[in-house]
Amino acid sequence: MSERPGEDDLIARFFAPLAGPAGLGLKDDVALVEPPPGRDLVVTTDALVGGVHFFVDDPPGAIARKALRVNLSDLAAKGAEPLGFTLGLVLPDDWTAEWLAAFAAGLGDDAAAYRCPLIGGDTVRTSGPLTLSIAALGAVAPGSFAARGGVRAGDRLYVTGTIGDAAFGLLQRTGKGPALGEADRRWLLDRYLLPQPRLALAPVVARFASGGMDVSDGFVGDLTKMLRVSGVTAKIEMTRLPLSPAASAAIAADPSLFPLAATGGDDYELILAVPAAATAGFEAAAATAGVAVTAIGEAMAGEGAPRFVDQEGRTFKFARGSFSHF
Amino acid sequence: MSERPGEDDLIARFFAPLAGPAGLGLKDDVALVEPPPGRDLVVTTDALVGGVHFFVDDPPGAIARKALRVNLSDLAAKGAEPLGFTLGLVLPDDWTAEWLAAFAAGLGDDAAAYRCPLIGGDTVRTSGPLTLSIAALGAVAPGSFAARGGVRAGDRLYVTGTIGDAAFGLLQRTGKGPALGEADRRWLLDRYLLPQPRLALAPVVARFASGGMDVSDGFVGDLTKMLRVSGVTAKIEMTRLPLSPAASAAIAADPSLFPLAATGGDDYELILAVPAAATAGFEAAAATAGVAVTAIGEAMAGEGAPRFVDQEGRTFKFARGSFSHF
Repeated sequence: MSERPGEDDLIARFFAPLAGPAGLGLKDDVALVEPPPGRDLVVTTDALVGGVHFFVDDPPGAIARKALRVNLSDLAAKGAEPLGFTLGLVLPDDWTAEWLAAFAAGLGDDAAAYRCPLIGGDTVRTSGPLTLSIAALGAVAPGSFAARGGVRAGDRLYVTGTIGDAAFGLLQRTGKGPALGEADRRWLLDRYLLPQPRLALAPVVARFASGGMDVSDGFVGDLTKMLRVSGVTAKIEMTRLPLSPAASAAIAADPSLFPLAATGGDDYELILAVPAAATAGFEAAAATAGVAVTAIGEAMAGEGAPRFVDQEGRTFKFARGSFSHF
Repeated sequence: MSERPGEDDLIARFFAPLAGPAGLGLKDDVALVEPPPGRDLVVTTDALVGGVHFFVDDPPGAIARKALRVNLSDLAAKGAEPLGFTLGLVLPDDWTAEWLAAFAAGLGDDAAAYRCPLIGGDTVRTSGPLTLSIAALGAVAPGSFAARGGVRAGDRLYVTGTIGDAAFGLLQRTGKGPALGEADRRWLLDRYLLPQPRLALAPVVARFASGGMDVSDGFVGDLTKMLRVSGVTAKIEMTRLPLSPAASAAIAADPSLFPLAATGGDDYELILAVPAAATAGFEAAAATAGVAVTAIGEAMAGEGAPRFVDQEGRTFKFARGSFSHF
């Protein structure tokens, strides 16, 4: 396994086994996709750079899975079902066949688990760090798309899962976090390494949500962005922000970390706006889908940043609204 | 213009003006595409790395245009009409607003000229060289897709335009080519810098071609690959290989350069297979579309690399079948 195959051999050996029918065995330059009749297409793309979005010494399979999952998270936020993805694989000079085999194995596992086959790609070399650019296609029924700009005054605002774990995981990874029990530490590290795209919720989003966005750059900043694009504001009850036991333990150890939970990046949870009349149906459907959702506030007519309030109704101020990978 | 905007400002300022309706003003994370009814989708992606696929000191607009054009060339080879593209823009630390303005202007010019609007993207930073990853979507009528593996024994083989110009242009650029008149030198340099995607021929490809591929890694190597995937071989008359006056001048100055014309990369012309009964219709339609096509040989039953023969029927041997960017 130590020889280094050329581009065609590399594709045939590592990636062709992952290809769906639309990928034409990765023997063509392109994919041929028969779009599901009567559906709109959702197209998303995310680029990840070694040393910026992941550590270059992360397990290769985890790097591959994160690259795919951050794109799947965007599809989930829109209520879209995945159709397939292309991979732009930009390899540094020191790649090895072993590394690539592990990368492809992780990618294949997730492509199968999330039913999002590889349909095409391009493999090139760089003098810089490993860079991955994935474009994912999804399908959504016309009118069901949950736009970032779709939030309306009166909508209830929800988040999925728990917020802040990835930012705390990154702290643990870089040795800057508080001392924690091993189980909590592992949980947080894993949440940074492997986002959980909420695709199981996509049909529920399509059916109930008026607006949706995934949280990649921090809850506070991304929510603010979503409300601005929607032309509304909101009141958010920060005591309702869902925290994992591990994140709660970190905040208990160092209460000054709370703002980081609300503003740190890489959550890949969803912020969803649901019309008030539909909340019961939404919550029941989310429970059936097995995805935790938490009501955290309400969208309101008006402009400007949302008000983040504590238990006593006092306004939180965040020194730094969001994390940017850019 | 010397301040450096953040990611959202950068998108709003430079890229949102280029967005088609499916791009949702680049205010969402995704694009929403209504697929043309009754058409299949063609998806292609190409990544370009500074120092590998272009010179980092090339004009920014030309870099942008090349990145889009190499994708459009893939759509043309399949007979597909462009629908839009996403851009993964991986910027090195030394980017400037001036550079980005020129890059976006070039990209916008080509997006308009080829009717292929920007529909989404992602902008990230790298410690390495500028890297561009574009995914383009096209549409083709079911059954009209010109597959790489679609060549059948008896098909006539054609190439568009002229072959070898880009390889000779790269020689001129790096100071290794023969001395040429200024007009020839400029032509070759321009052919390396700016591929000409043969999109005007796409409807003709869809109507007449049984197989298609664009020449990115050299005529000899790419044709060999296309025939192998199709399970046929071919006899190619190398004296019919279409050469531009500038390429002919270069070969006249240094006859040892002929193999480079046939094997060098970056032509972005098309190799097309046309059933023998359809050649007259194909040639007439290509003439109407304004794209030069040249018959260069015939596909035949059998395996193995094609035979490249000269005027006297002697077989050419190429030391190096193709150029690889990888």
